[in-house]
Amino acid sequence: MIDSKPRTLAGALLLGLCALGATSASAAPKYIFYFIGDGMASPQIHATEAYLGALQQDDAEPGGTKSVALHMSQFPVQGMQTSYANDRLITGSAAAGTALACGLKTNIGVIAMDPSATRPYTTLAELAKRKGMKVGIISSVSLDHATPAVFYAHESSRNNYEQIDQALLASDVDYFGGGGLRVNKWKSAQYADLSNAERYTLVREWARARGFQYADDRATFDTLAPGLRTIAINPYLDGSNAIPYALNRKAGNYPGGPYEGSISLAEFTAKGIAVLDNPQGFFMMIEGGKIDWAAHANDARAAIEETLAFDDAIRVAADFGARYPDETLIVVTGDHECGGMTLGFAGTAYDTYFEVLAGQQLAYDDFDDRVFEAYLAQFDTAPPNIDATLWELVSTYFGLDGAKLTETLDDDLSDYELGLLEAAYDKAAHNHSDNVAEADTLLYGGYNPFSVTLTHLLNRRAGIAWTSYSHTAVPVPVLATGAEAWRFGGYYDNTEVARRIAAAMRVELDQ
Amino acid sequence: MIDSKPRTLAGALLLGLCALGATSASAAPKYIFYFIGDGMASPQIHATEAYLGALQQDDAEPGGTKSVALHMSQFPVQGMQTSYANDRLITGSAAAGTALACGLKTNIGVIAMDPSATRPYTTLAELAKRKGMKVGIISSVSLDHATPAVFYAHESSRNNYEQIDQALLASDVDYFGGGGLRVNKWKSAQYADLSNAERYTLVREWARARGFQYADDRATFDTLAPGLRTIAINPYLDGSNAIPYALNRKAGNYPGGPYEGSISLAEFTAKGIAVLDNPQGFFMMIEGGKIDWAAHANDARAAIEETLAFDDAIRVAADFGARYPDETLIVVTGDHECGGMTLGFAGTAYDTYFEVLAGQQLAYDDFDDRVFEAYLAQFDTAPPNIDATLWELVSTYFGLDGAKLTETLDDDLSDYELGLLEAAYDKAAHNHSDNVAEADTLLYGGYNPFSVTLTHLLNRRAGIAWTSYSHTAVPVPVLATGAEAWRFGGYYDNTEVARRIAAAMRVELDQ
Repeated sequence: MIDSKPRTLAGALLLGLCALGATSASAAPKYIFYFIGDGMASPQIHATEAYLGALQQDDAEPGGTKSVALHMSQFPVQGMQTSYANDRLITGSAAAGTALACGLKTNIGVIAMDPSATRPYTTLAELAKRKGMKVGIISSVSLDHATPAVFYAHESSRNNYEQIDQALLASDVDYFGGGGLRVNKWKSAQYADLSNAERYTLVREWARARGFQYADDRATFDTLAPGLRTIAINPYLDGSNAIPYALNRKAGNYPGGPYEGSISLAEFTAKGIAVLDNPQGFFMMIEGGKIDWAAHANDARAAIEETLAFDDAIRVAADFGARYPDETLIVVTGDHECGGMTLGFAGTAYDTYFEVLAGQQLAYDDFDDRVFEAYLAQFDTAPPNIDATLWELVSTYFGLDGAKLTETLDDDLSDYELGLLEAAYDKAAHNHSDNVAEADTLLYGGYNPFSVTLTHLLNRRAGIAWTSYSHTAVPVPVLATGAEAWRFGGYYDNTEVARRIAAAMRVELDQ
Repeated sequence: MIDSKPRTLAGALLLGLCALGATSASAAPKYIFYFIGDGMASPQIHATEAYLGALQQDDAEPGGTKSVALHMSQFPVQGMQTSYANDRLITGSAAAGTALACGLKTNIGVIAMDPSATRPYTTLAELAKRKGMKVGIISSVSLDHATPAVFYAHESSRNNYEQIDQALLASDVDYFGGGGLRVNKWKSAQYADLSNAERYTLVREWARARGFQYADDRATFDTLAPGLRTIAINPYLDGSNAIPYALNRKAGNYPGGPYEGSISLAEFTAKGIAVLDNPQGFFMMIEGGKIDWAAHANDARAAIEETLAFDDAIRVAADFGARYPDETLIVVTGDHECGGMTLGFAGTAYDTYFEVLAGQQLAYDDFDDRVFEAYLAQFDTAPPNIDATLWELVSTYFGLDGAKLTETLDDDLSDYELGLLEAAYDKAAHNHSDNVAEADTLLYGGYNPFSVTLTHLLNRRAGIAWTSYSHTAVPVPVLATGAEAWRFGGYYDNTEVARRIAAAMRVELDQ
């Protein structure tokens, strides 16, 4: 759990000052941390900071805290990168990840290969291994998802999960930590009769045969030996084999929860340091993968909690870097913005009420799959209107019960808001809609109409709005601290992030 | 007119390299250019770059140009600032401008004074004068608007135009260039019977009495003497005494146009250099003021053309800086984002078609005031539906006539889009709406419902969407080049922009 106090500047600033004095004539940094927030750009970062500020706000003092800087925001060097793919202005995680891992553009969906998917690109992780460094790959989503995969696999499609999983096991990466594998996506006939559990048993056997120690429960994770090759998978995985949302992990007891003993991204990062530390140093990529997923679903609170979990992992690296300031480089960026998130809404105009987001207790997915599904399951046909029981659930999990939200906002949902919510319920419960298909697409984007309308209403009341359920082309910040951090200033292309890391590491990416 | 070729890197890079080698032990830069794009943040900048890229795009080559970097984007140093006011997360131009001019927070609406509006703050322009530098204040909106005013006036409210105009004339600023003054807002009884033209005559007399040479036509502007105190006002002013939109100035002959002999922000900047250059150097603030206004109205093409006009003025400074690289500092930032602009829309998902924006020929204001008003004026009561004549106007000025827009988009407006446009027309022509008031606010934001719906439809087809008609709290980039540019890296508060400029100038702002 993140506290909402102003973060200490000590580690980041110390590193930063040392960094600014560094020159390219000195030795390459021994420890490289490369943090990639999937779907994270300035709006996601600053919404989190403004939310922390709003929680601290003293109503009696209008000049009070407006923003609490995250650890990453205290890094001394700031850059900005364009994220476009070779074949599309709005990129995807495979093409963007390839640029960030290999310093070269590719097409949408391609994993660390050229646009025609005939030539593999060399990755920073591979070059780190050639240098004798150890390598760690950490993600809050599945370890074979596009962003981690571009560091160790070369595939024509991000959807080749079976091949990516084989590449993962065949790779010389020293530490994998975070979510699981998408074993349910394997397509070979030989696995057709195996359950997912049986497929994971195979993975465990293969991993051990390749010399990995393997953990998929808290007790084993806590006793993993340092210095050994390691695969560590969170004991709880969602339907896409990712770590459950940080917001759901905070929610405590509810249908589906609590996720007791779940391992945070920060813990996976700390374990990475313990497992990888050695005289030749290490290269560690840590992905905050579900900022993106929450943003796709237009769920601001879930995105904020994922950003906080990501920043907590950054704090672990910054604390380590503060101990080895001349030898540690930390680079934080995102692969692209997601959701067209902004910090302002037509209905709230110049005002914001981010504190109302605190009323949300669950991310959209567990609300949909655990709470709303169980509610609907009790009926042969769902009721025509939102009934008292459902209002109670909305109150419990979104704080939108007509209770007073802020002094300034009206107490109750307006007739307009109520109309939107009732239409969404009708669509969700009966698949009925008065809207034309195009309006439905814009209103719900393929998500559960009821919960996506709830998050829209709550977000808008806070003063946060979204324009898309997809990624956008909004540029992405790069934040850096430590040795050679000076390289990361300016406005440049995402391929340059990888090339500047390569320059810091004294290695050569493909041209 | 801006060309859409890749901008030359020469000037900016040269300056940049020199800058990065500078140290604080050297002399203060002699020439300071401070560019403030009102309402300009990353989305506005990158939408412009992606628009230039789309215009160059070769359909036969899918890997072609996605983005053409503006001059400002080629500056070597990038920072990012938070924009919040003392009393509100989402700032306004007075509070943000005060932070950028004085290095101190204030409340919404206050001009270069403390939140209680009792203590005046010292401004960078005043400190420059005390140092013996000359000072220029340039804006594409009125010279008494909030952003220029915070550099030379101290008022409890930005709406005190009469007092701000008196402060302007009483100031020791050496050069004012751009829009006019909001003489129509004067409130003293003694001016009540004077027309606006008579009030401008007074201004001219006062200006000459204070030792200013005064131009408000092209011929006089072109022959202004160097070295003299100068007020130069564009020969054409819109209803708010601002320079007409760059998009309207490009439109040529139409009801209200052409604005022949109108003076661009780049020309006002070049004239500033000519007027101000002297052995003690100068401090020049140049505001691109109508990026904000176009963004308020959710008119992407108008905002893009204003950003290009702003960047053209930056090119003038960069060319000057290339001649005096060790003595010139150029800082570019915005005061806040506006409109909640993003580069992605739910309806276009991962695709963008920025080239369709080229079909728009007029900004919303001249379409409203010249074209649409003239159309409506021919009827005793406007027709119930959009007639063939109006479709023709929509075709001419927005390119939304059912003509093929792109190979991928449908040729015609969809039934859904048509429904939105017809409802907006009904509202605009008859002030009738089936929507509840709250929906009307969200759909039209107080703008002409017909033209704001046209720009919404056109923008969304391009893949650009908006969440607000107001400012947002999205952080704002800072781009810097030249002597002491290194100071502007990192993520910090907007007050720091002023403080870092003060440090570069070796002057002390108030604490």
